[in-house]
Amino acid sequence: MDHAATSWPKPEAVINAMTESVTFMAGSPGRGTHGMSLQAGRTMNKARSTLSKLLGFGNPNDVAFAQNATMALNLAIKGLLQPGDHVISTMLEHNSVRRPLEFLKRTQGIEVNYVPVDLSGQINLEAVKKLFRTNTKLVIATHSSNLLGCILPVEELARLAHEHGAVMLVDGAQTVGNLPVDVERMGIDMLAFPGHKGLLGPQGTGGLYIHPDINLEPQMHGGTGSQSAEPEQPDIRPDRYEAGTPNIPGISGLAAGAEEVLRIGVEQIYKHEWSLTQTIVENLQNLSGVKLIGPALGEPRTGIVSFILENQDPAQTAFHLDRKYGIAVRAGYHCTPLGHAQAQTTETGAVRVSVGYTTQEYEVETLIRAVAELSKG
Amino acid sequence: MDHAATSWPKPEAVINAMTESVTFMAGSPGRGTHGMSLQAGRTMNKARSTLSKLLGFGNPNDVAFAQNATMALNLAIKGLLQPGDHVISTMLEHNSVRRPLEFLKRTQGIEVNYVPVDLSGQINLEAVKKLFRTNTKLVIATHSSNLLGCILPVEELARLAHEHGAVMLVDGAQTVGNLPVDVERMGIDMLAFPGHKGLLGPQGTGGLYIHPDINLEPQMHGGTGSQSAEPEQPDIRPDRYEAGTPNIPGISGLAAGAEEVLRIGVEQIYKHEWSLTQTIVENLQNLSGVKLIGPALGEPRTGIVSFILENQDPAQTAFHLDRKYGIAVRAGYHCTPLGHAQAQTTETGAVRVSVGYTTQEYEVETLIRAVAELSKG
Repeated sequence: MDHAATSWPKPEAVINAMTESVTFMAGSPGRGTHGMSLQAGRTMNKARSTLSKLLGFGNPNDVAFAQNATMALNLAIKGLLQPGDHVISTMLEHNSVRRPLEFLKRTQGIEVNYVPVDLSGQINLEAVKKLFRTNTKLVIATHSSNLLGCILPVEELARLAHEHGAVMLVDGAQTVGNLPVDVERMGIDMLAFPGHKGLLGPQGTGGLYIHPDINLEPQMHGGTGSQSAEPEQPDIRPDRYEAGTPNIPGISGLAAGAEEVLRIGVEQIYKHEWSLTQTIVENLQNLSGVKLIGPALGEPRTGIVSFILENQDPAQTAFHLDRKYGIAVRAGYHCTPLGHAQAQTTETGAVRVSVGYTTQEYEVETLIRAVAELSKG
Repeated sequence: MDHAATSWPKPEAVINAMTESVTFMAGSPGRGTHGMSLQAGRTMNKARSTLSKLLGFGNPNDVAFAQNATMALNLAIKGLLQPGDHVISTMLEHNSVRRPLEFLKRTQGIEVNYVPVDLSGQINLEAVKKLFRTNTKLVIATHSSNLLGCILPVEELARLAHEHGAVMLVDGAQTVGNLPVDVERMGIDMLAFPGHKGLLGPQGTGGLYIHPDINLEPQMHGGTGSQSAEPEQPDIRPDRYEAGTPNIPGISGLAAGAEEVLRIGVEQIYKHEWSLTQTIVENLQNLSGVKLIGPALGEPRTGIVSFILENQDPAQTAFHLDRKYGIAVRAGYHCTPLGHAQAQTTETGAVRVSVGYTTQEYEVETLIRAVAELSKG
């Protein structure tokens, strides 16, 4: 139950696609004309095309692959911002957003407002409106908190961003593949996502959707197999943002995972995960000695439920869940210190349980029984 | 025969390690305490430890994993250089060195001298000595040209760099796993390498060895599972340079590939590849209508042999070799435009044949016969 870190088990199709790829696709797309190289290129195109269907953008070349969502977020943030720019973000961001912003604050003098979000994901939009300045270039929000599971109003934030001439960047780490995301309909200008969480692909994959009107400074400069004689990165997509040999086996697996998500249907996945979290919340909220943090029963959320036991350190709870009950969860800060400040769990951290499409009803029952036993001491 | 792009076929052990990893290791090292997460951490530690043995550095944590050698070079170059710094590099560098340098020239005002290298890899070291200035921070050389296969005097360049207080960065894309490399003995302060060429691992992997005295600005800011409450990247290695979920399946494969290289022995691999290139050069140099570029017979080289047919465009030659003879090679510029300027093949590009440890004698014979036939028109 650590799907918020990475989904597990991976679909058979993902494992098979990777094996086939590493066995037969020894080529760099766009660099060679031999059969294996062309096959690698076709696989990458297929992955882009599946993602464009799943995430609602028209041109498959508007997605740039990355090693992980962190790399995608670094490209989006550092590739767009210039010295003197102002950014509006939230207090529920992961360190993959906060640390690049803090780095640019220190080195480039950019300014950032982190707006508060309540534990159910609500933001005071009137207060946000007042933060916009003439130099506000970017609004960044996670679509769902990796600590609380609450869902943030990214469409409303996108509308505000556009009203003020700013770009909307969404961190889809916890929602892509878990919750319907349609970048064009929702007004998302850039969407960073991992390949190995909701998309069911392997670790080592991720990507960034970039609206065709946005031109980023590439963060990786190097060979692209195109315009090789030029000292600058080429302008054409996706080459501009994908220097060096791509992770062909990983992207093959990601393509297979994304197809699996398309086949099952994101709505169906969401319904399943929602039903499981509601069972967890309903049962844990009645246990004395258990403090749930995050949205209340019935409120929108992704597959994450975080809590602390009053009699126990979260690390100890996670340890017992693993060793006694065979349940893998995460304890600690989950790279979101401001989120803990919001939840008033800065001193302790929290235990995070996260379910996925493969999580079964009986596993949730085991979890509830285990937490009940541990909460009694 | 496109081993300079990526080695093929990959060892069984690499494919098996990846399958095992993607099937069983659903965890982020350092983030969770559950079994799968710890297992992922152990695999990464094993990979670091194998690399430290292979490349001759004492502390396994001095290697940072990356998506490819390009990403490693970007970290080394952009992480070290500051506005106003001067760099000495060579005309045989890949675009993964040249493009980051040209980017920093444009945006940060750094200055670069690209020194000439002859087709057998020789550099006029007396001339290089005169290029050093008080602001020379970095010397960068590829260990072997990805176009010519010639070997550059990186140890001598490292000595000059150190005499002038500069850091020595080596691009080991064509040599790590193919030629003995010992960073401590050779005075290499930073070594960038791919995981999928000489190391026999999967595409999507690579790394950077960083001498313990060198502190780079991380190029990826984000979650590390350590010091999560801090807005800055932690100082500890390797976390500092590895934000976000690592490519666990890829690194599992890389570990298996590197172990295979250790088992066979780099000397043995080099001997095999050398013998094959000598057979190729010996035969092609006698064919009329074939122009070889690169080191002469008997001179030091890696497994690369480049040539052009007088009667044919390189792209056409590569196409015929693939379709008629089933030989995968590469035609074009190989991301090294200054190298082509040196070789006087800027107008045409070249056909590049590259052998690896798995290349067989009979395959080389087929190649020679094929080139002989094609050269007759």
